Amino acid sequence: MKIDQTRLAAMDHRYRVALINSLSGFKSANLIGTVNQTGHTNLSIVSSCVHLGADPALLAFVVRPHSVDRHTLENLLETGYYTVNHVNQDIYRQAHQTSARYPRDESEFHATGLTEDWRGEFKAPYVKEARIGLGLRFREHHPLAINGTEFIIGEIEEIWMDDGLIAEDGFVDLEAAGTVCVSSLDGYHRTTKLTRLSYAKPDRSPVDIE
Amino acid sequence: MKIDQTRLAAMDHRYRVALINSLSGFKSANLIGTVNQTGHTNLSIVSSCVHLGADPALLAFVVRPHSVDRHTLENLLETGYYTVNHVNQDIYRQAHQTSARYPRDESEFHATGLTEDWRGEFKAPYVKEARIGLGLRFREHHPLAINGTEFIIGEIEEIWMDDGLIAEDGFVDLEAAGTVCVSSLDGYHRTTKLTRLSYAKPDRSPVDIE
Repeated sequence: MKIDQTRLAAMDHRYRVALINSLSGFKSANLIGTVNQTGHTNLSIVSSCVHLGADPALLAFVVRPHSVDRHTLENLLETGYYTVNHVNQDIYRQAHQTSARYPRDESEFHATGLTEDWRGEFKAPYVKEARIGLGLRFREHHPLAINGTEFIIGEIEEIWMDDGLIAEDGFVDLEAAGTVCVSSLDGYHRTTKLTRLSYAKPDRSPVDIE
Repeated sequence: MKIDQTRLAAMDHRYRVALINSLSGFKSANLIGTVNQTGHTNLSIVSSCVHLGADPALLAFVVRPHSVDRHTLENLLETGYYTVNHVNQDIYRQAHQTSARYPRDESEFHATGLTEDWRGEFKAPYVKEARIGLGLRFREHHPLAINGTEFIIGEIEEIWMDDGLIAEDGFVDLEAAGTVCVSSLDGYHRTTKLTRLSYAKPDRSPVDIE
């Protein structure tokens, strides 16, 4: 079946949004924790976190400045810090609920029952219930004129995770952490590992690792 | 367990790369198909495809210009077109193998046994074995000075998929398409749907859809 531009242009708006949001494939599911200068916290689910580089350790995500993500963006620009917390299968309902349009003075932590966790001197709140949490320092934002979104880049300053999740070679067992993934706007999925494959070389086929 | 900056800085390079690549969560798995002006095709697996917007329908991905992705980038800049094809559970081994460093004149289609599929007038090759394929027109690239990567934005001009994958509301059943996801550099995973959740509103909890 082919959907061409004519058919795309004629689509109902909501249908189109659900469809196009499906097309990148499975997405990461993360909660971004921030606080503003007067101490109000914010928590926002994002499905656009993407690895940008290992050295420096950079993670990026996309924000729509006029959406419910607005407070997240304002806060991280104000303080320079934010946390990224993996959504796991025990908290995906609360995580989804953070996308509701709460008033500025109501923290999504409080509204959804997820727990603020302040660790050491880090200037943004972690999600206590997440098994993998990252502390990031804001580095760059690129406004994307093409559709008014912003591409936010941060550097990972600290990593928190349950013991035993990292294999000898640095690979993290996201399944053991219960990390879920997302499809389209609202599909939540567990995963089952097929395999890990060896580093690809031109002269041979990849083999299973482990 | 906490990993701080001192520990991060002291890590073995490969360990660090595997670890940091794990931290964004599960990633999409796509094959990007291109051709250069003399007709040589190229196919490259990427795990950084991210939804950017529904109207216009925009998809973005990250390229390292000095890596094996180089030919993909050169080709799509030359012709202005590329395809994005979902990696499914029948082809993930061949898809992984496209990341080997083949010489410029050897197509990864030929080397891995995946089949070039030219559809209508579209100026880039699809992967015949993929059940979801997108035809994109290159729109923008943003060089990210922070680490020398490029953020590539394209507009979806056509969508090809097997019949029966789209629900009444536009949601695509990626599991029925066999689409896989990736963790770290080399982990491949199937998924199992937990549920779909209703649009979040401040005054009530989300309920399951379907």
